[in-house]
Amino acid sequence: MLVSDLKQTIREVPDFPKPGINFYDVTTLFRHPEALRSTVRRLVERYEGDRFDALAGIEARGFVLASAMAYELGKGLVLIRKPGKLPAETEAEEYSLEYGSATMEIHRDAVEKGQRVLVVDDVLATGGTARAAGNLVERLGATVEGFAFMVELGFLPGRKTLGDESVFSLIRYD
Amino acid sequence: MLVSDLKQTIREVPDFPKPGINFYDVTTLFRHPEALRSTVRRLVERYEGDRFDALAGIEARGFVLASAMAYELGKGLVLIRKPGKLPAETEAEEYSLEYGSATMEIHRDAVEKGQRVLVVDDVLATGGTARAAGNLVERLGATVEGFAFMVELGFLPGRKTLGDESVFSLIRYD
Repeated sequence: MLVSDLKQTIREVPDFPKPGINFYDVTTLFRHPEALRSTVRRLVERYEGDRFDALAGIEARGFVLASAMAYELGKGLVLIRKPGKLPAETEAEEYSLEYGSATMEIHRDAVEKGQRVLVVDDVLATGGTARAAGNLVERLGATVEGFAFMVELGFLPGRKTLGDESVFSLIRYD
Repeated sequence: MLVSDLKQTIREVPDFPKPGINFYDVTTLFRHPEALRSTVRRLVERYEGDRFDALAGIEARGFVLASAMAYELGKGLVLIRKPGKLPAETEAEEYSLEYGSATMEIHRDAVEKGQRVLVVDDVLATGGTARAAGNLVERLGATVEGFAFMVELGFLPGRKTLGDESVFSLIRYD
C-alpha cells in the first residue's frame, strides 16, 4: 500500500485524551490486514542490513510495531514499560510529556553493554517518551541505533528533541 | 528451538506482583532473538490455513505475540485494552482475575459481525482476562475462533474456563 493509503486508514479522534488534542488513532490501521503488513514491511525495509542487536518497544502500542519488526528482522525485543509492570530489577526514568509527566522502566538485564538498540513507538509527538526510552537504553551501557515511528506529528518538536538524523517515520502530519 | 529450550528462556520471579505468586517473566524470552522468532513461528504454524479474519491481542504483552502473528498470517490486529486507552466508542467488560478484578475494552468497530477472531495473550492463568476478551468479541457479533497462548499455567483452571478444545498453548507449567 502507498503511504498515502496507509494514512487514510488512521482515524482522527478530536478531544482525546483531553479537550483540544486531536488524537491519531492507529488501531484502525492495525486492524486492516494489508495496512498492518505494509507498515511493518516498510519499517523493516528501512532497517534491513543495519547492524544492531535489539528493538525496544514502548508500552503499549509501540509493542505492536517493535514485535513484528523484531520478528521479521530476527532481532530481540526489549519492553519499555510503565512503572510496576516489569517484575525483575529495573532502571526508571521520569520525564515530561504533552499531557503531563510520566515514568518509564526497563529491566536492568534487558540489554547488554555495547549493544545497539532501535527504539520503536507508534507516534512521535514531543519526543519525551522516546527520549526517556533512549536514556534508559544508554544507562544500561547500550547505544541507541535510532528511533522509528509509524506516525510523526511534524507540528510538534519530536524530531528536534531526538535529533533529526536519528529519526525515521513513515506517515507525517504537518 | 525446541519448546523445552524456549521454556529455559523464561524467568521465574517469586512474589510478583504480590507475595506467594510465582511470576513467569516472558520478557527474557522476547529479548532472545531465536526464542521470539521460534515462538511466533510455532504459534503461526498452528493457525496457518485456518479460516479466520483477525487476531485480538490483550494489553499489553498479548500485543507482542498477536502483532507478529497477525503480520505473518496476513490478518488484522485488534487491541483489547484497559479502560480509557481506546479513543473511539467502546464496549467494556468487567471480570474477576487471579489478583482482584479488572475491566477490558474493545472499539465497537474493531471487528465486523460474522468475522472470526483469534484471541491471543502471553500467559493463560485463570482464563478470566481471555474470557472477557472473548465476550467482547462476541458482543460485537463476531465469533471466537480460539484462544492462543505462549504459556499455560496448567495448575490453574484457565483451560476449563475457556473450553478445552478452543485453547492452544506452546509452553506448559504443571
